Amino acid sequence: MEIFEATEDNYGGVTVNMKKEEPMDSHKFHTMLVASISYWRQKGKKGVWIKLPIELAHLVEAAVKEGFWYHHAEATYLMLVYWIPETPHTLPANASHRVGIGALVLNNNGQMLVVKEKSGKSTGIWKLPTGVVEEGEDICVAAIREVQEETGIETDFIEILTFRQSHKSFFGKSDLFFICMLKPLNFTIHKQNAEIEEAQWMAIEEYAAQPKLNQSELSKNIAKICLAKKDNEYTGFSALLTTTGLSAKKCYLYSNI
Amino acid sequence: MEIFEATEDNYGGVTVNMKKEEPMDSHKFHTMLVASISYWRQKGKKGVWIKLPIELAHLVEAAVKEGFWYHHAEATYLMLVYWIPETPHTLPANASHRVGIGALVLNNNGQMLVVKEKSGKSTGIWKLPTGVVEEGEDICVAAIREVQEETGIETDFIEILTFRQSHKSFFGKSDLFFICMLKPLNFTIHKQNAEIEEAQWMAIEEYAAQPKLNQSELSKNIAKICLAKKDNEYTGFSALLTTTGLSAKKCYLYSNI
Repeated sequence: MEIFEATEDNYGGVTVNMKKEEPMDSHKFHTMLVASISYWRQKGKKGVWIKLPIELAHLVEAAVKEGFWYHHAEATYLMLVYWIPETPHTLPANASHRVGIGALVLNNNGQMLVVKEKSGKSTGIWKLPTGVVEEGEDICVAAIREVQEETGIETDFIEILTFRQSHKSFFGKSDLFFICMLKPLNFTIHKQNAEIEEAQWMAIEEYAAQPKLNQSELSKNIAKICLAKKDNEYTGFSALLTTTGLSAKKCYLYSNI
Repeated sequence: MEIFEATEDNYGGVTVNMKKEEPMDSHKFHTMLVASISYWRQKGKKGVWIKLPIELAHLVEAAVKEGFWYHHAEATYLMLVYWIPETPHTLPANASHRVGIGALVLNNNGQMLVVKEKSGKSTGIWKLPTGVVEEGEDICVAAIREVQEETGIETDFIEILTFRQSHKSFFGKSDLFFICMLKPLNFTIHKQNAEIEEAQWMAIEEYAAQPKLNQSELSKNIAKICLAKKDNEYTGFSALLTTTGLSAKKCYLYSNI
């Protein structure tokens, strides 16, 4: 009986990487799947992962009928999973958070860089430049990128001033939003983003006094932190590029040491 | 021609929620999909979202053939997406991060709570209690929960000492790991977790001196922060429960103001 090739992990699991270059009809897929699960069960395997490229979407139904469920999906593939033992599964959770940044960019006159957005919930309010951290991007890099994209201002990263976690913000997922302090390297604004209505330097007190902003306790608190930072009465977390493990993988540690 | 019922969003998009209680054969699904897209195109709609319960896995193939791709999946459903305009899509990104916590629990003798894990990469090292933040869980709550689950020690949350972001940690996703300082409310350890080999109170200097721990620059830096905290030479971010927007949704803001 033909069974699937699978790679083993350290937790008693196996992963099958289906190849889009090797199409298979769903009958053959199902037959091999049944034989493979039987083999893995004998071997004492626990979790079974199948990575199915979107080109093989016709095989999803057969896997689900056999008891697989969805673990996660990206644009180009669906990851299905199955648990062999009779015990409750101990499979790792899917990604749970999206990460965003806001940037406090202060010039030497105590003015901050603010923008007005063309659409969304915040129209009519002067706000910090904000954006979403891209897949695989460091927070301190994302902040610099977003400010440059929205306003043309180049910056250096100084520190993270504060962050908030909120839930059910998007498709049931949670959201972490980091306010980064950046030091501007130039001062002439070139509004570059189609989403930005206006951009300017503004006295931080004027920003903090906006009535619409003060309808949100969160925004009020963030403005308070920005004001404290302007007066040097506040210590954020700076970024230390360090390495982890024996493989010396690079990562950033944020702290005020 | 029959078309799908859809809810509209603020970004020119429509969402179709397929119901598992209303099964449909894939031919009818495909016919309605073509008619619906044509209708939405006339209406100037942009993004089209289809939420497909796993019970309707037989419809995935038809949607993909019509040009839909995967946006994300959870155990019980697959979210497919399509972009009508000729322009590049501006659809929001999928969740990109998993969030974990480590806990520094210091008793009045300057000893910290440490555990040894039964399996994984860290066996043989005394380490902080750690865990994964659950869907919808606050970081400060997750830290208290994990310490209680692993050691039976009840705690109060004090502050976040540091955090690190790393990439490609799991299925290509990124990882944010927050070290939380907690104050113990009891001191007798009841090791409760099947994953924990041993748990004890240990002098923080002894923890920091472990040779295996010092093979990782990251761990060395974290130990340095823990030592600084013991000597009160360090300021972390405490948690402020606040509200955001007009709906007054609760969220935590972490800062040292």
